[in-house]
Parts: sequence; C-alpha cells; structure tokens
Amino acid sequence: MINLSPLLPAPSAAQVEKALSLLGRKLGPSKLLTQAESCAAYARDESEAIGRQPHCVVIAENEGDIQAALAAAHDAEVPITPRSGGTGRSGGAVPLAGGIVLSTHGMNQVKDIDRRELCCVVQPGVILGDLHNAVERENLFYPPDANSLLACTLGGNVACNAGGPRAFKYGVTRNYVLGMEAMLIGGQRIFAGKRTVKGVTGYDVASLLVGSEGTLAIFGDITLRLRVKPEQVMTVLALFKGVHDATAAVGAIIAAGLVPRCMELLDQQTLTALRAAGNPLNEDAGALLLMDVDGDEGTVMREAERIGELCTESKAQEVLVAQDAAQRDRLWAARREMSPAVRRMTKNKLSEDVVVPRQKIGTLLDLVAKSCEKLKVRHLTYGHAGDGNMHCNFLWNDDSEEAAVGKAIEQLFVDVVSLGGTLSGEHGIGVLKAPYLHLEQSPQLIELQRQIKNVFDPKGLLNPGKIFGAPGHGAC
Amino acid sequence: MINLSPLLPAPSAAQVEKALSLLGRKLGPSKLLTQAESCAAYARDESEAIGRQPHCVVIAENEGDIQAALAAAHDAEVPITPRSGGTGRSGGAVPLAGGIVLSTHGMNQVKDIDRRELCCVVQPGVILGDLHNAVERENLFYPPDANSLLACTLGGNVACNAGGPRAFKYGVTRNYVLGMEAMLIGGQRIFAGKRTVKGVTGYDVASLLVGSEGTLAIFGDITLRLRVKPEQVMTVLALFKGVHDATAAVGAIIAAGLVPRCMELLDQQTLTALRAAGNPLNEDAGALLLMDVDGDEGTVMREAERIGELCTESKAQEVLVAQDAAQRDRLWAARREMSPAVRRMTKNKLSEDVVVPRQKIGTLLDLVAKSCEKLKVRHLTYGHAGDGNMHCNFLWNDDSEEAAVGKAIEQLFVDVVSLGGTLSGEHGIGVLKAPYLHLEQSPQLIELQRQIKNVFDPKGLLNPGKIFGAPGHGAC
Repeated sequence: MINLSPLLPAPSAAQVEKALSLLGRKLGPSKLLTQAESCAAYARDESEAIGRQPHCVVIAENEGDIQAALAAAHDAEVPITPRSGGTGRSGGAVPLAGGIVLSTHGMNQVKDIDRRELCCVVQPGVILGDLHNAVERENLFYPPDANSLLACTLGGNVACNAGGPRAFKYGVTRNYVLGMEAMLIGGQRIFAGKRTVKGVTGYDVASLLVGSEGTLAIFGDITLRLRVKPEQVMTVLALFKGVHDATAAVGAIIAAGLVPRCMELLDQQTLTALRAAGNPLNEDAGALLLMDVDGDEGTVMREAERIGELCTESKAQEVLVAQDAAQRDRLWAARREMSPAVRRMTKNKLSEDVVVPRQKIGTLLDLVAKSCEKLKVRHLTYGHAGDGNMHCNFLWNDDSEEAAVGKAIEQLFVDVVSLGGTLSGEHGIGVLKAPYLHLEQSPQLIELQRQIKNVFDPKGLLNPGKIFGAPGHGAC
Repeated sequence: MINLSPLLPAPSAAQVEKALSLLGRKLGPSKLLTQAESCAAYARDESEAIGRQPHCVVIAENEGDIQAALAAAHDAEVPITPRSGGTGRSGGAVPLAGGIVLSTHGMNQVKDIDRRELCCVVQPGVILGDLHNAVERENLFYPPDANSLLACTLGGNVACNAGGPRAFKYGVTRNYVLGMEAMLIGGQRIFAGKRTVKGVTGYDVASLLVGSEGTLAIFGDITLRLRVKPEQVMTVLALFKGVHDATAAVGAIIAAGLVPRCMELLDQQTLTALRAAGNPLNEDAGALLLMDVDGDEGTVMREAERIGELCTESKAQEVLVAQDAAQRDRLWAARREMSPAVRRMTKNKLSEDVVVPRQKIGTLLDLVAKSCEKLKVRHLTYGHAGDGNMHCNFLWNDDSEEAAVGKAIEQLFVDVVSLGGTLSGEHGIGVLKAPYLHLEQSPQLIELQRQIKNVFDPKGLLNPGKIFGAPGHGAC
C-alpha cells in the first residue's frame, strides 16, 4: 500500500498560540496567514503527498522575516516547513505536522548579475525560468533546467539539488551554488560557502545544505555560478525499435567523446501515450532519443552530424536534425506534450525518479516491464539517458489498484539498488521515498545523517518527517 | 610570529602501550613501525609544519587494516593521523599529538576502469600521475592535476579537494568523486555517495568528506568519475608589461565564452626568479600567461587563435602558440622550472594558496606588494588566474625575518577576505592556516563545523588540531 499521508502529531494549542503571538508581534498581520482557507492551500505541493493543514503561513519578504519565523518556531517548539514554488515531486514542502509553513515565494529579486565574474545573487523565490531569461539577456547561461522551470524557484532548486535535461553536460544545481545565506532554527544566520569558484576553507557546508530538502536550514540570498551562453544549439531526434538500441546509441555517443547537453529517452509506453494524444509518431518506433548539442556553429554542425551517424550505426529507424528555433521546437514537441498526454491516460500516477548506471537502463526497463506485467500495473518511463536518470511512472485509476502499485514501486527501488543505482536523481527523498531509504543506505550512514540533522536542528522542528521518516520511527 | 609547530599534548604512556598492544595483536609486526628512526620520517610532510614524532606508524595494506587502526585508536584513546603521499602544503598529515600515523600509501591499486560508464575505482594510495597514465591508456581523462602529481595520492587529493591548473575548465576533485568507502573512528565502515553521476538520496555526505582533511574519516576505495580524453591540446603563452594587463586579457577571454583548460599567471617577481635561474625570458615582461586549450583539432586551432587576438588586444608584448608536444613542453618550461628557481633564491618560504574574484587579482597583488614593501619581505606570486587561485610566496633567509613574514601573511589573509576571497583554494587549512580561519568564517559557522566534527569523532582523536586549531582553544 502507498502511504501518501504519514502525518506527524500536531503541536498543542498552547504551542500554536505562543507561536502565533510571537509571529504576530514580529511580523505584523500582512505577512501572516491564519485563516483556514488561506492555510489549506499550503497543505499540498505538486506531489501526491498530503500534509496536515498548517496552523499559519508566514509570507516572508526578507531574510529578517525568515529569521523571525525560525525564532518563533524554536521558542514555541512548533514545527516549521519551508516552501517556495511548491512544485516538488516528493512532498518536501508538505507540512506533516501542521505548524508553520514559511513561504519564500515572494522573495523573488535577482539582486546582482556579475558578467565579469560569471556569477549572480538571487533571492530564494526567484523562478528558475525568470533567472534563465535575466542571465540570457546578458549573454550568460544558468544550465540547470528542471522541467517545472516556469514555476519552481531557486530556493527549492537548491534545497532539492534540482537537475533537468541539461545536467548531462553541465551538472546539477550543486555544481552552480557557490554559497548562500542560511537561516538556522532559532533564527541565526550564517553565510556558507564562498563567492569564488574555488575554495577549500573548512568543511563544504554549502554542499551539505544543497539537497538537504529544507531539513537543515532555510535559504536567503544564494550566490550562483554562471556560464557564457553557448552560441548555437542543434537538436537531433532519433527513433529506434526499442530502448536497447537507443541506449546502445547513447553509449556509442558518449564513448566517442561527444557530450550533448541533453539526451532524453522516451520508452515505448510513453510513445503510445503520445500517439493517443494525437502525435503522429511512426507506429514502428519503440523508443525515441532527443538530443541537443551546443557550442559554436562549427562544433554543433560537426557533433550533430556525428551523433546522427552513431544513431544510424545503432540501428536508428529515422534521424531528424533541426537547427533553427522553429524546427527545434517541433522536435521537442513530443517531450513537451508528454506530461499532459500521460495525465490524460490516467486518474492517478506516481513518477519515480531513479538513477542507474547508464548502460543498465535497458535492463532496468525490462525489470520494470516484468514486475508490472505480473502485478498488472500500467507504467511508462522517460528521462535523462545520458546520466541514467529515469522517471518511471506508475498509473492507476482505481483505489483498489494502489496495493499493486505500491508493490511495483518497492520492486523498482530494489531493482535500482541491485543495479548499482540510487533512489532519486533530482526530486529528492521528501516524504514519499523516506520509507525506502534503508534499501539504499546502511543503518550507520542513516544514523550519521540523523546526527548531522541533530546538529542543525536538535529539537527536530525544521521540516520534520522528511528524508528519514518520522522522528524516532527509524527509516522503514 | 609564525607558529609552525602548535603541538598538542601527547597521549600517556599507558594509552600508547594499550594502542600498541591492540595494533600488534590485530596487524602483526610487518604492518607496524615502532622504532624511533622509522617513525621520525612521519612527523613532517611537504609543508613547513613540524609535528610531534608519532609513537607508531601503521602501514595499511587493506581496508581491514584501516579499520583495525581506527578501532585501536578509539579503544586506547590515542590520536590517529592519516597520511598517504605526504605531499600536503598545509600540514594536514603532520601528527600534532604524536600517537598513531596511519599510512595508506601502500594501497595503490587502480581496481577498475569502466570505459562505458566513465568511472573508476581506486585505492587511496594510488599516485595521481599513475592514475592519469592508467586512464589515458584507455583514451580516458581524469582532469585534477595537482602540481605534486608524481607523488601525491588520490586519498590525499580527496581529503584536500585538490585542484590544479586544469580545474579552471574541469573543476576540482570534489567534482569527480562519486562515492567512497569511509572508515570512521572506532572502525565502522560506510559507503558514502553513489556509483552514478546523478543522485540526491539523503545528505551529500561524500561532498562533506571531500576536503575534510582527514578529520572526519579515512578513505578506502574511492569511485571517481572520468571523461573521454580530449583529442588535442594547444598552448598559448603571452607576455605582458604587468599583471593588470594580463588579468585584463583573462577577463576578455572568459567574457568571450572561451574556456581554456588552464590559465596560469606568473608575476614580475616570479619572472625575475626564472631569469636568475637561467630562463631567457624577455627582460621587459612583467607578467606571463600560459594557457592550454583542448578539444578536437578545429576547436583548439580556433580557440588558440582567438585567445592570441584577445591577448594582443589586451596589450600583450608577445604571443607564442604551440601545438606539438615538444613545442608545448618548451612553453611550459617556465612554469615547471618555477619551483626549483624559487627554492634557489631563498632558505625559507611559505606559499599561501588564496583565492580572490578573478578580476581582483591585480588589486590583490598591488596590496601584497604594498605590505611587503613596508615590512621588507620578499615575495612572488603565481597561480591559476582563471579561477582567481593565487599562490603568494613569502621568502626569508634569517630567523629574524620571521616576525615580518608572519605579519605579511596575516595582512594577505585580511586583504583576501576583504576582496571577497577565501583563505585556501586547493591546499586546505591544515595546521598552518587554522589560526586564520576566524578571519573568513563566522563563529557560528565554525561552531557548526566543530559540531559536525563531533558527530564523526566525539573524542577528537582523528587528526586533531587541524582546520579548527587545538581542541578547546577556539579558532585563533
């Protein structure tokens, strides 16, 4: 069975009252939502997890507000859950114990773009797509491109170490975070990291905070590294009989030393969903690879051509190449239409974001097909083939199917770990994967992490129940 | 005054006896050095720091030996200092309290090179240059290239998050560590990290261990990411009147979107040292830039040409380009001859490895010149201009000059921090920079790191006195 709402005990009325009193005094009413209807919207995020309705929501306008909320949470011993875009897929922003939700969504200023030093300073509520636009106007480039880029924010991206298709060439959010203002439970503020690209002074606390899913600190200003925008992008789309041919092509491209910025793979079931939604894809195709190369004009021409050849050598049925924006847009349509197409097919779905060594993608998909056939669960998979990061989707319409879906998911994680992979590539553990952490990590490693959490948050008030499950309940 | 030997109290005779008895039983005599002459060699590393002679040295042959040594250290409450190549420049491998030195130097097997997955598994004693050769034979590439590559080891590289000239394009050691076996005080073993390029399961304990300078854990097998070897390398050497013109060229090259893999800068004083050692460098030159570009043939030709143009536009006096190995070797001669040339000039030197935003390099060098003129201290600077990582060397012959050198170093750190920089780019804090940590980091951040240290090593036995200074003595 899938437990989508592993709620924690709510704080007592006296604790809530104390927190509200402290917050009211420090922030004033304009930054504090307490009405049930307003708070209800903050019990969910974009995942399937269902939280406990928060007792209040702080709408932070500056770092001082974040500090005040963290001080009040500490003094009243009330849980506090940070939230920015609310687009997470693992339930990281869902308040399992109610209490305070702290929204940094309104802190959305790009405060500095330093063209010469190739870095920028952003507030945590800046929307990723807005940052892309802001830096690209200066001929600069911020590579991480989570799929939710029109709504997700840098604060959440850093909390989850977000990736995206371009991560294959350019790395994930952690590779771009130089440092950040981090507010701790109780309200202290530290600057973690550095303002330069290099630096080995002390422990890498900034890297520890990246991907900590709001369980260690809440971010204020974030300093990010930038690149110069690549001159050109070209897109190659290749259709194959099945995923084994497609992943063979991926292997051949990588072995040839080519580094496309994206290598997106769509499996047979995903193509079926697209056809059902009206995409005129070739009926014979059982897998699709969509690849972008970037660089100067000579480079992209040469690389796109070589990639096309290598796909053909790996038995591609068809190879299309696009250079101008309109052509590229047409090739990317399939990838873009995928989410709505899948949603149209099913009432419920869970998308599991796993990683395996890239040469094991085909094996993983075979194992998923096998377990889903046995359990009678519908499934489809797409993802970032270059780094082995696959999004395996399990679909169901009726509550009676939930038990089988739960089994298919657990089998997926067992298979992923046995193939040398990891439970999450870019969405994080949050609530939904916490029960499976022990499949990948040893009790000693989990205990070490719990103790690190305890250093930052000895009372367990900051985003409780995430990553490690309910406090005191062990990981499973 | 420079305190090069901030020793800590040695363990008691009873503690040492207990440790030796435990070690003797578990390891046997062949892996345990106890004679004073043998142990004496382990009181120093390549830095100026002077440790306390260890009571014994464990020559580990496998992870079990490391675990046994860590268990004995824990049970007997005797300090233990890890060491591999012993090439560190900050005293990280110097045993300040005596006790046990644990050498992983003999664990020098490259255990696996996975060409398709682009990763490898190495033991901690593998010499960096040997790894380069091993992977390059397979047409693969491991970019970090610390200057001591003929002697330094991967265990030390990971402990210090080593960089090197190629870090500008390819990043530092942390960017290549996927995961590692980590042995904890007491002897437990954990696997931290992952075997895939992507992964966000739990906190990034692997990144926390990278750069922890042997204060949190001792490494066994390390899994490293590799790249495909670039097809070609070309070298551009440019001479300038002074560092301001040279750094203007660096800025122009980066702003143009070019990413040379190295951008090495040598200042006027360094060029003087080279001339004194017989290098026939143009007498007018006051700064030298040495740059490598890599990629396919078309790319390197195009980039080298453009870099040459941009140097000329930034008033370069002379630009030389080399493509074949012999020509490249000649251009790199100046950089290679630098260390011996500097050593010939002086009895003593301290090389401080600092980082400033790259556009502030000229300002930093002006400040260094100013303070050194006032203090009558000889100095020279070279380093990695692309990432602002400068090695400022202070030279002296007579003990009476030490006080002035100490003042110049402290002033350097004050200046670096005021320019938005950091105390160390690739050598680490170790012993020698511990007294200055508070200049850069807030008491709250230092306290958090001490508590993280305490999670891993509650008795303070693992490499004591490093990064944070003597236990209980605060940072300054």
